[in-house]
Amino acid sequence: MAWPLYFEDGALMVLDQRALPAEERWLACTEVEQVAEAIETLAVRGAPVIGIAAAYGAAIAPAENFERAVERLRRTRPTAVNLQWALDRVREAGPDRALQTAHAIAEREQQATRLIAEHGAELFTEPARVITHCNAGALAATGVGTALGVVRAGFAAGRVREVWVPETRPLLQGARLTAWELAQEGIPHRVVTDSSVGLLLYRGLVDAAVVGADRIAANGDVANKIGTYPLAVLASRHGVPFYVAAPSSTIDAGVATGADIPIEERSPRELATPGDAPAANWAFDVTPHDLVTAIITERGVVRPPYAF
Amino acid sequence: MAWPLYFEDGALMVLDQRALPAEERWLACTEVEQVAEAIETLAVRGAPVIGIAAAYGAAIAPAENFERAVERLRRTRPTAVNLQWALDRVREAGPDRALQTAHAIAEREQQATRLIAEHGAELFTEPARVITHCNAGALAATGVGTALGVVRAGFAAGRVREVWVPETRPLLQGARLTAWELAQEGIPHRVVTDSSVGLLLYRGLVDAAVVGADRIAANGDVANKIGTYPLAVLASRHGVPFYVAAPSSTIDAGVATGADIPIEERSPRELATPGDAPAANWAFDVTPHDLVTAIITERGVVRPPYAF
Repeated sequence: MAWPLYFEDGALMVLDQRALPAEERWLACTEVEQVAEAIETLAVRGAPVIGIAAAYGAAIAPAENFERAVERLRRTRPTAVNLQWALDRVREAGPDRALQTAHAIAEREQQATRLIAEHGAELFTEPARVITHCNAGALAATGVGTALGVVRAGFAAGRVREVWVPETRPLLQGARLTAWELAQEGIPHRVVTDSSVGLLLYRGLVDAAVVGADRIAANGDVANKIGTYPLAVLASRHGVPFYVAAPSSTIDAGVATGADIPIEERSPRELATPGDAPAANWAFDVTPHDLVTAIITERGVVRPPYAF
Repeated sequence: MAWPLYFEDGALMVLDQRALPAEERWLACTEVEQVAEAIETLAVRGAPVIGIAAAYGAAIAPAENFERAVERLRRTRPTAVNLQWALDRVREAGPDRALQTAHAIAEREQQATRLIAEHGAELFTEPARVITHCNAGALAATGVGTALGVVRAGFAAGRVREVWVPETRPLLQGARLTAWELAQEGIPHRVVTDSSVGLLLYRGLVDAAVVGADRIAANGDVANKIGTYPLAVLASRHGVPFYVAAPSSTIDAGVATGADIPIEERSPRELATPGDAPAANWAFDVTPHDLVTAIITERGVVRPPYAF
């Protein structure tokens, strides 16, 4: 199983996901700024994992810089609420208990993936062709992953037979990370362009969609990697169930609807447009709750109406 | 204005669109096989333009190889019906009149773009933010282009103010070709990932969608570059008009519905997946007619119910 980060000898060790699958390169972060930059540059990514990383980032700060470290880490990425959730817990614990709190968060999130996988695998009734988006695997959540945890458990139970993997431009988390995780486990899969989701559903080649989440609003609206909303609209049109798999740390009951979730806009340079054409590069979109068949957390499977 | 091909001194001169925007490289095709390969490799592309190219390809064949040339060119690409349409006309004319027929087709298609642009520009009522997909510009259709002809005429009339350009993976006809054409004319535009269409519509940043077509079935179903169908579904959900601009040579009254249109599957190597992950690479999808607000041809604007 891929493993995205661990803490050892005072350092947060981070698998540099930018280099995958070509190279397994580890970064040793011994200072807050290194952790912050690893999160900002997507060396470490995935909503649950950036929560864990941020918790360790605060824990390695000298006690006198603890508050400043928490604030620095808060500003790294705006959309995934897990980051704020984890930092709130570490801050409440204070500098003396920050490290044990970070360990507890890491353990909790890992356990959550196992339970999410178990609950989610129950949803498939026959060998299904599943589509996901981006990477909601072990690399994003530790353990078995969230959406990919469901896929793994479903495959092990003979209830998943193939996975469609949208490449997920601009940074190719699908083609690079999800394909890599699935190949390691021998789960049949094919990468497609992000714009292929319409044809796949039109042709009846998809039985279920399972994605992760970066933030879930109180009404069940889901912010996730950009491209999730088009997939959900198409799944709905074709009567294919659309599942969201995420630990409860992804739920933000303080945000009424998806319209209130901040959507990160990243550098247009990530698109590397030929001829330096002007570009816009939002990283997430919002899937309205009416398109979400069920939300799978460690507590079980929740169906509409959603009220978190 | 970009110009994709012309005939001179017995050679079909083709602007190699694979090299754009970095380089304007021209290919001189003096043999049928060169034209066929230019079409297959997307050196020349766009439904109306590959019809024109194929017509010239047959016209340069020695008379004794005329029939074989027509059949060779027919097999280059399956989805755009313009190719079959043009070859039918050239074949009917016979080898002696093939060249003048090719010239007539080129002239007809160029005129069509001017009329399409005029009709289409009427559809915008106030300065609109328009989204397109792939490249349905001068490079794809000669003249002013089809979808981009509408954009050009709309911009000239003060009724288009910005264009969203999905990059169009895997070959980036949006980021490379559409952005290049728009930059040449000073029309404000921004490239986005293909998966951005959901967020753009969710945020109310799009007033109209205008795309080209590779084949239109008798019931108004539209085959076009993969990614068109997701855009159409989202436009419909958000009450944004979705227009298709194409010459009448794109209409295939012999095909009842989109389900009967052959969809080209190209080499997975075009995706260049990291780590050689397995991939699938369909080039087109089908947009059901219920999502199409109007079809703009040289004859005017047609609205549902469609019956070609």
